Amino acid sequence: MASNNDTLAVIALGGNAIIQKGEKGEFSEQFLNTERSMGPVVDLMERGYKLILTHGNGPQVGAIMLQNEAAGGKVPMAPLHVADAMTCGSMGYMIEQCFRNEMRRRGIDRETATIPAQIVVDREDPAMKNPTKPIGPFYSKQEADALVAEKGWVVKEDAGRGHRRIVPSPYPVHVVQKEVIKHMLDLGYILITGGGGGIPVYQEGDGTLHGVDAVIDKDLASMKIAREVGANLLIIITGVPKVTINFGKPDETPLDKLMVSQAKAYMDEGQFPAGSMGPKMRAAIEFVEADPDNRVVITDVENVVAAVEGANGTTIVAR
Amino acid sequence: MASNNDTLAVIALGGNAIIQKGEKGEFSEQFLNTERSMGPVVDLMERGYKLILTHGNGPQVGAIMLQNEAAGGKVPMAPLHVADAMTCGSMGYMIEQCFRNEMRRRGIDRETATIPAQIVVDREDPAMKNPTKPIGPFYSKQEADALVAEKGWVVKEDAGRGHRRIVPSPYPVHVVQKEVIKHMLDLGYILITGGGGGIPVYQEGDGTLHGVDAVIDKDLASMKIAREVGANLLIIITGVPKVTINFGKPDETPLDKLMVSQAKAYMDEGQFPAGSMGPKMRAAIEFVEADPDNRVVITDVENVVAAVEGANGTTIVAR
Repeated sequence: MASNNDTLAVIALGGNAIIQKGEKGEFSEQFLNTERSMGPVVDLMERGYKLILTHGNGPQVGAIMLQNEAAGGKVPMAPLHVADAMTCGSMGYMIEQCFRNEMRRRGIDRETATIPAQIVVDREDPAMKNPTKPIGPFYSKQEADALVAEKGWVVKEDAGRGHRRIVPSPYPVHVVQKEVIKHMLDLGYILITGGGGGIPVYQEGDGTLHGVDAVIDKDLASMKIAREVGANLLIIITGVPKVTINFGKPDETPLDKLMVSQAKAYMDEGQFPAGSMGPKMRAAIEFVEADPDNRVVITDVENVVAAVEGANGTTIVAR
Repeated sequence: MASNNDTLAVIALGGNAIIQKGEKGEFSEQFLNTERSMGPVVDLMERGYKLILTHGNGPQVGAIMLQNEAAGGKVPMAPLHVADAMTCGSMGYMIEQCFRNEMRRRGIDRETATIPAQIVVDREDPAMKNPTKPIGPFYSKQEADALVAEKGWVVKEDAGRGHRRIVPSPYPVHVVQKEVIKHMLDLGYILITGGGGGIPVYQEGDGTLHGVDAVIDKDLASMKIAREVGANLLIIITGVPKVTINFGKPDETPLDKLMVSQAKAYMDEGQFPAGSMGPKMRAAIEFVEADPDNRVVITDVENVVAAVEGANGTTIVAR
């Protein structure tokens, strides 16, 4: 069992911890990559961290939507919130099994569980009226027009590659299973939850919950989970060991330790692009601003232990 | 919170609690049916039962396999154990949300969680060498031959409707997340777990777990979960209020209360067909034989409270 003094941390696994560049995402590859990624994560646990693992689901939910399309009218199509829940099950299973297996190889006997999390969003969130997140397969102009007419989708042309459905990406307001998650952490379990940014739901006036076809950013969702369970450490796993400024320029500079005020200044300068480091930095800034004891570490999975100990990665702190 | 005196029960939802006869299984229908089915289940909780909800996944996993096929080589195909895990996520989400919503409408404030469960099977189980369970879409003879050659599948002709993949249906030996499930029940949570018979895995000599392309019977899995967590009541929900003997004959007779010895005698007579009541009765017999305090109730979801109270349904007891 974990001691109560163990530090509670949320670790958000990026896509490349599960599917590597150039791979098609065969499940045998996904299991192998995840198994490899769990090595450093178990190292971290052995250093005295209670862990919540979250994960993205972009390629996986995209594949499900493509398969749904391909089967046409033969079987009912899953709404996006249901497809999200599918990846909470399948990816949670994969990550949990790989984490467990790595513990067993080391003779560690701790328990794990996967909790598909519903996350409440606000129907009045301005993001709900302004879809920005592309999802699923590419369509021809004709197909896209038909889908807009038939299903009321919002569709956008994606740089010469065809048309794609875009969905809202609202802010995560509240984690429905928060109390369960807290209890299980207290009992020393390692949890996989909040996968794919969680299953987005809205709450009616009578307290009932209903799925929404939207995608919550997984770094923001991870940040929200960390805040709700009272974790002071948020670890965001990406494809590079450190965040850099002036990316791709001769004066590209890696960042080691960063005050939140400096992070915000870089953000305003446009140093962190919307499609990659931007959402991670947005989550990092909000997390550190919420509590001066909070700390965010951004790094790749190989360097996670070193980064948490300050010897690698980019750390964002209040002061 | 549940009091510690609440009776612990496992309730296994059959397919018709979620998709009704004649429906295509549109998700809007599945949510509506599930919402309706949760009324009597919440009634049961209000009578003082701590509940684990399990569920089948036949049509849902079949749809996923068909969608996987339809997308052909465009995106990687999910192995069956991964598809099972997907339905643990999606159906768990749906059932949990509907259960929660019904509680909220009644002003009940109890917590819920979905736990995708891995269930260990024995690789040496004779069932592993003798696949019996049809899964996924129908194929032409030509397509079937190609799949046998390419993927090593076992394929069988299904009464004039075409060829279908058949997979093993091994016995559930052990629930991997047993301790977690027990802890969460102690804390008063309502759990959804063991969906689709659980995710079948085998255990290597080093303790590591690995997925198997098989389907565990959901009634046997529910029975095993009930035994492992120490529940004395197993409720199996089906499409009819009572089990009958001489089904479809002029002397068809509904069964009220049944000694396990009588249930076995009827089983030997062939009263319970393999495709419907057989597996439920097999699970019932094993559960009651395991502990003379154990009781099984088989009924439809509308009558679940009356059946548990002995006023409807078929009850199987030791003596």
